Amino acid sequence: MKFDEAYSGNVFILSNPDFEESDVVIYGMPMDWTVSFRPGSRFGPARIREVSLGLEEYSPYMDRHLEEVKYFDAGDIPLPFGNPQRSIDMIEEYIDGLLEKGKFPLGLGGEHLVTWPILKAFHKKYDDLVLIHIDAHTDLREQYEGELLSHSTPVRKACGLLGAENVYSFGIRSGMREEFQFAKDSGMHLYKFDVAEPLKKVLPDLAGRNVYVTIDIDVLDPAHAPGTGTAEAGGITSKELLDAIMMIADSDMKVVGADLVEVAPAYDPTEKTQIAASKFIREILLGWTNKK
Amino acid sequence: MKFDEAYSGNVFILSNPDFEESDVVIYGMPMDWTVSFRPGSRFGPARIREVSLGLEEYSPYMDRHLEEVKYFDAGDIPLPFGNPQRSIDMIEEYIDGLLEKGKFPLGLGGEHLVTWPILKAFHKKYDDLVLIHIDAHTDLREQYEGELLSHSTPVRKACGLLGAENVYSFGIRSGMREEFQFAKDSGMHLYKFDVAEPLKKVLPDLAGRNVYVTIDIDVLDPAHAPGTGTAEAGGITSKELLDAIMMIADSDMKVVGADLVEVAPAYDPTEKTQIAASKFIREILLGWTNKK
Amino acid sequence: MKFDEAYSGNVFILSNPDFEESDVVIYGMPMDWTVSFRPGSRFGPARIREVSLGLEEYSPYMDRHLEEVKYFDAGDIPLPFGNPQRSIDMIEEYIDGLLEKGKFPLGLGGEHLVTWPILKAFHKKYDDLVLIHIDAHTDLREQYEGELLSHSTPVRKACGLLGAENVYSFGIRSGMREEFQFAKDSGMHLYKFDVAEPLKKVLPDLAGRNVYVTIDIDVLDPAHAPGTGTAEAGGITSKELLDAIMMIADSDMKVVGADLVEVAPAYDPTEKTQIAASKFIREILLGWTNKK
Amino acid sequence: MKFDEAYSGNVFILSNPDFEESDVVIYGMPMDWTVSFRPGSRFGPARIREVSLGLEEYSPYMDRHLEEVKYFDAGDIPLPFGNPQRSIDMIEEYIDGLLEKGKFPLGLGGEHLVTWPILKAFHKKYDDLVLIHIDAHTDLREQYEGELLSHSTPVRKACGLLGAENVYSFGIRSGMREEFQFAKDSGMHLYKFDVAEPLKKVLPDLAGRNVYVTIDIDVLDPAHAPGTGTAEAGGITSKELLDAIMMIADSDMKVVGADLVEVAPAYDPTEKTQIAASKFIREILLGWTNKK
Amino acid sequence: MKFDEAYSGNVFILSNPDFEESDVVIYGMPMDWTVSFRPGSRFGPARIREVSLGLEEYSPYMDRHLEEVKYFDAGDIPLPFGNPQRSIDMIEEYIDGLLEKGKFPLGLGGEHLVTWPILKAFHKKYDDLVLIHIDAHTDLREQYEGELLSHSTPVRKACGLLGAENVYSFGIRSGMREEFQFAKDSGMHLYKFDVAEPLKKVLPDLAGRNVYVTIDIDVLDPAHAPGTGTAEAGGITSKELLDAIMMIADSDMKVVGADLVEVAPAYDPTEKTQIAASKFIREILLGWTNKK
Amino acid sequence: MKFDEAYSGNVFILSNPDFEESDVVIYGMPMDWTVSFRPGSRFGPARIREVSLGLEEYSPYMDRHLEEVKYFDAGDIPLPFGNPQRSIDMIEEYIDGLLEKGKFPLGLGGEHLVTWPILKAFHKKYDDLVLIHIDAHTDLREQYEGELLSHSTPVRKACGLLGAENVYSFGIRSGMREEFQFAKDSGMHLYKFDVAEPLKKVLPDLAGRNVYVTIDIDVLDPAHAPGTGTAEAGGITSKELLDAIMMIADSDMKVVGADLVEVAPAYDPTEKTQIAASKFIREILLGWTNKK
Repeated sequence: MKFDEAYSGNVFILSNPDFEESDVVIYGMPMDWTVSFRPGSRFGPARIREVSLGLEEYSPYMDRHLEEVKYFDAGDIPLPFGNPQRSIDMIEEYIDGLLEKGKFPLGLGGEHLVTWPILKAFHKKYDDLVLIHIDAHTDLREQYEGELLSHSTPVRKACGLLGAENVYSFGIRSGMREEFQFAKDSGMHLYKFDVAEPLKKVLPDLAGRNVYVTIDIDVLDPAHAPGTGTAEAGGITSKELLDAIMMIADSDMKVVGADLVEVAPAYDPTEKTQIAASKFIREILLGWTNKK
Repeated sequence: MKFDEAYSGNVFILSNPDFEESDVVIYGMPMDWTVSFRPGSRFGPARIREVSLGLEEYSPYMDRHLEEVKYFDAGDIPLPFGNPQRSIDMIEEYIDGLLEKGKFPLGLGGEHLVTWPILKAFHKKYDDLVLIHIDAHTDLREQYEGELLSHSTPVRKACGLLGAENVYSFGIRSGMREEFQFAKDSGMHLYKFDVAEPLKKVLPDLAGRNVYVTIDIDVLDPAHAPGTGTAEAGGITSKELLDAIMMIADSDMKVVGADLVEVAPAYDPTEKTQIAASKFIREILLGWTNKK
Repeated sequence: MKFDEAYSGNVFILSNPDFEESDVVIYGMPMDWTVSFRPGSRFGPARIREVSLGLEEYSPYMDRHLEEVKYFDAGDIPLPFGNPQRSIDMIEEYIDGLLEKGKFPLGLGGEHLVTWPILKAFHKKYDDLVLIHIDAHTDLREQYEGELLSHSTPVRKACGLLGAENVYSFGIRSGMREEFQFAKDSGMHLYKFDVAEPLKKVLPDLAGRNVYVTIDIDVLDPAHAPGTGTAEAGGITSKELLDAIMMIADSDMKVVGADLVEVAPAYDPTEKTQIAASKFIREILLGWTNKK
Repeated sequence: MKFDEAYSGNVFILSNPDFEESDVVIYGMPMDWTVSFRPGSRFGPARIREVSLGLEEYSPYMDRHLEEVKYFDAGDIPLPFGNPQRSIDMIEEYIDGLLEKGKFPLGLGGEHLVTWPILKAFHKKYDDLVLIHIDAHTDLREQYEGELLSHSTPVRKACGLLGAENVYSFGIRSGMREEFQFAKDSGMHLYKFDVAEPLKKVLPDLAGRNVYVTIDIDVLDPAHAPGTGTAEAGGITSKELLDAIMMIADSDMKVVGADLVEVAPAYDPTEKTQIAASKFIREILLGWTNKK
Repeated sequence: MKFDEAYSGNVFILSNPDFEESDVVIYGMPMDWTVSFRPGSRFGPARIREVSLGLEEYSPYMDRHLEEVKYFDAGDIPLPFGNPQRSIDMIEEYIDGLLEKGKFPLGLGGEHLVTWPILKAFHKKYDDLVLIHIDAHTDLREQYEGELLSHSTPVRKACGLLGAENVYSFGIRSGMREEFQFAKDSGMHLYKFDVAEPLKKVLPDLAGRNVYVTIDIDVLDPAHAPGTGTAEAGGITSKELLDAIMMIADSDMKVVGADLVEVAPAYDPTEKTQIAASKFIREILLGWTNKK
Repeated sequence: MKFDEAYSGNVFILSNPDFEESDVVIYGMPMDWTVSFRPGSRFGPARIREVSLGLEEYSPYMDRHLEEVKYFDAGDIPLPFGNPQRSIDMIEEYIDGLLEKGKFPLGLGGEHLVTWPILKAFHKKYDDLVLIHIDAHTDLREQYEGELLSHSTPVRKACGLLGAENVYSFGIRSGMREEFQFAKDSGMHLYKFDVAEPLKKVLPDLAGRNVYVTIDIDVLDPAHAPGTGTAEAGGITSKELLDAIMMIADSDMKVVGADLVEVAPAYDPTEKTQIAASKFIREILLGWTNKK
């Protein structure tokens, strides 16, 4: 029996203790300072890790095993409470560092605003980046209640940064009239309600492209993911999201980074939201980070 | 900054403060005195309003905005605790008043018995009224445990009042053998298990008719609506109910009133039941109350 | 009004008080001693009975009434806490007794290991027994953390006992690579992800066979059954499981016993898991135990 | 191993299966039809029984064992949903029967209105009855929202029936101004906030009297009993209520009947309310029903 | 029956609809942007109002009735999400307005930082203001994680503004070593663990002074108030806090304003935290706002 | 910003990463295999660590700071599920190791049976060991349901091992008649109901003795610690337990090891049980492990 080291910590199952030899870095962004309705996603990353202990290391979907991927779990970036500007600066700097070292960044939110600094960092490295955005909400606001930095604005900002024509949204079932109008006018690609079906059609067009994928857990119906800040009825099942993850794994795109955001455990006493999220992370590790 | 009036109250989002200029009246019926298994729907109306703050005012399903409809939220009728007879008398009188003033009554329950006095009031105004009943349960009992006034009896009473051939039930997956037998013998229209598919077939037959629609939230599977008194496995998704609401909006019937009942928040710590209900109310406001 | 006997007890709705004249015996196995992630299924049987009071006695799926079946609810076998070996010995002895008296054993778990002693007892009586196993997990481990007696091993043991070619698993979406490899190598029949569709294909092959059916509630998606120890995203709906139960009822197999396991109520404050389970038990009583 | 009888039912621990040879009858009154704020006490009796399995049969407070008392658990009287008048008639008739047979009635509520018919039955047998009422609320209203039959009125009715001077209330911390005024004017004995201390002073005066004791669980602080319909901050601890029960056990009064009401399990996911209630019932059985 | 106005809104029970004729203004500050451990107090004000419906309007503690006080419930100030600086500016401006109109401001938090702008506004009007601070935490940090605006700093700021010798803290059981050291060095008055006893000693010294009182609900033990962001074991009972409120009501100080903060409903499924808070507000209305 | 090491793990706040230079070792025993009523304490150690992040590092009770103590958090011993015998062998071996290396073992349970192997290890080193046992339950059974290894037996076993006269139990409020009789006959010291008061009297007698202290969280009232398997009404407050911890810190005994057991988080959605437990651990670290 060992004595001089701890038996376990709260890390994603089977993560590699060595940063240098890892290809992927899982990192948490425990931030929910701009969330309007029900905050709490700052605890998402820790709980997703915690329930990963209940996962099998093998995926019958992919027929792959987590041993085939080398990933390091970096814990949560220590973001300053209540300060969105400094938080997003820290995230951008962190991603800059990971990209410089050639790692695949796999982020756990936290609110959706965190994707904005991530994209800024990726944009410096990849000038033709495509964004795949899977979400219940458009997130296309210019501002929210007078704030430019809000969980409702990151995709709008992304359109400005990457070019609207490089932004693809799927599963959208909520937003302001102006946001849907912007989507039409700007030339971005917005698919309402469904994910798997429109994705299937779009993927061939994206062959060979460098793609960042951001998944807001609230694209799932509240039946499947009640633990989120802005649960919206009429969503997809976790089975459908697993299908979408498989499709991307099987596609000819080059996924260069990804995140899964808005898991807010306090609203789900059954823990099923984080249980699903942690399975999605396993599949992303297996299918996206070591694509041939 | 204002000082002499309150910043907000618990009303459905964007409701009009002026009764006279409103076309629709949202009203609550906080009653659950005859509920057998798990009471608590008396708190449904208040919680549906409360979570409406999390809704967008625009519907991407309808491409309409709540500003296009004028509705007044009248709060909850002050029904006397534990007194079914007086409660239903008050509801009937209330609906009489709304119909006299030419309003579209949009009711929030409360237990399903509340639909009975509503129908009595409508029947006085519309002698050819059709009832569309979307529910997990037949509600066709003559009495329940010896009580004539019960949440299990309103549709049976409706058959007597409106003529069984004018009553259409959808999504039914629970009831007594006698109730299903009655449905067959009486000539009413009862569709088991599904809602959208049989509704699609029936709607053309109802073109031009005056129709009242009552939705029991338990038609949804408990995965989607656990917050209800008699949750019954094997139900439809909230996506399917949204589809049904769209179909009715697109039909050639004349919807003259509607209610949504049996939301019992205490049984759903995730709040997803009222979150779904409040979205259905938005779609009903947009699609049913201002049909051309 | 009666005075000298109790008005009710916690038994499955409409169960017959007379053991001798009953054809079916419902019995509970309140055991979860080998469960790794989240224990608590020892309370499953009691809660399934408790919510059965909310069920109708008539099934619109089957068009049958519980009065048509004679079943005795034997309560829970008093298994010794924390002692898997003695517990499974007691279960085997209990089933031996029921089979000797010609009863149909309908078991409520408890963890899935309980199926192992049940199968041992059945195997003594039926030498050509087929096992239908509906579950999210393979349960094909040889051992778990060094333990031979584990909730992860019963189907592996069953393959040894009954012959792998007589074991059919459906709905499987989690397991070790070795388990899936064993399934392939051994000649057992393992169908991933879905239940109803592969079952439909297989059932004709099993016509005339004596079949035992074990259902792990976690085959349902956590949206439908969060109250279980190892909830796994991406599962089937309760509607689909009802369909599967109907198919078996309509098949030409001879169902000789069944169990429903792994309901752990503490993880589901909405009670929907036991509400669904209790409906499945009603349908099993109506469709499997009195097949012509 | 036995086969022909059930292993257990949901009865209070160690209750005697034989009505005739029992001295005490535990009975439930699953009624909450007149409860205004948060209903749900109809499930109180069943849950109190359920958690009694976690109790020891021996009391270190009393140094007595439940084997020393003979009590029969009659289950719940089947009260008609939503009908207060018929419900209280049935309760009165039931208590008439128990008193005729010389049993000690020990009731489990249910809402507090149930005490009214119980007192009517006792009054027929004991013309000098004293009522000890332990509660957070005065329950001295003449009517509630126009209803004469309400959970807010039983003690007022009791004053009329038994004579106000024979009514003693303890622990009261909520009521209308008129109720406190009535208490003063009528000559009844009302002690605010505390229970044990004023009880100690009063008990000697009641030596030799026939006394009925009714305990509303909400006399406990919500810290100790959140599972009740009208939780009121500032209450006593469960330790203090145990002390009060001991004092009554040690007094020279003759306790002829008792009830414990208003346990509403749905509001307490920790189950501590019913856990405390079931301990109080054990102590009452040991200390009050077999006083020398 | 009325039709043209709503039956109710979510306002504190019996509040006066007329701002001008009211002496007291209840207002909410739905802000928790700087909360580190468990956010959610932004929903505190709405839930305190909601459960006020379960309160009696009369207090047996004070022998007073809410009709004796004229108060207007202004709803929640619409604070901008995630922007502490703008939020506190708005609060200060709001209080400036109330004080100018001669109202007694009675605030509902929200996080404790809200007290800082309130004190700034009061300080402009009262140059000798005393602060009574009832809390589990010192809140004496100069900054928190680098942020000057934090829920951990308001009392430190108050010491600078009002003079440390005018600041009295009670019930403190958590803080950094530096904070306790500051309390000693600065000359402020800090009483550990208890509230009622040290308050009793201090109150005579404050006779005639203008006093603002801020209560952090977490001064209560988590047994009494689990619904708060930084629950800390070892606290006082709600009975003790009621005693403290009475003492202040009976004192010779002039209370000129008050707030109750940090009620975070999501962490308390039993609702007992807001139930207690709403009772404290009633007692404050009765005892502090209309002192002779 | 660092990249090559994780930002955090789930360890007790401020624990030292270096085993060798630490004086104290915190270790978890995630075992609940013999728990009868409500299992789940296997998750206690992880949750106690998790909420330790909400604690201050400084104690105003002790006027000490966690920096003054060197402790290593070893994580949870990987005990084999469902195997009590092997689990307790592993624990004994682990403690043997810690004692050999001169560490102070501070254990987190897990069920109370874990204290038995710990005591066996300590007994080998200290032949005059005294046991202080703070608990709601006697834990003096010879066996439980036929099992010698049970969470109800460890103190009985301790009496055999250490001599009954060296065993002191406090706060006991539940047990079998035979257990209380054994306590009397054997000469052990059992104090009912209270902890602080009898402890104060006893401590001088134990001056200079080597003492092991085991605390079962259920000694607290369920108001303070609902998250435990066998919650028992009528317990002490967390304030009282903090007092007892201070008394032991101030005594002249030599505390050589300690544990805190039976925290079962699933039964406490408010998390107050683990919040209290984690504060107790801080006080034990500060007051017991570095006594002069």
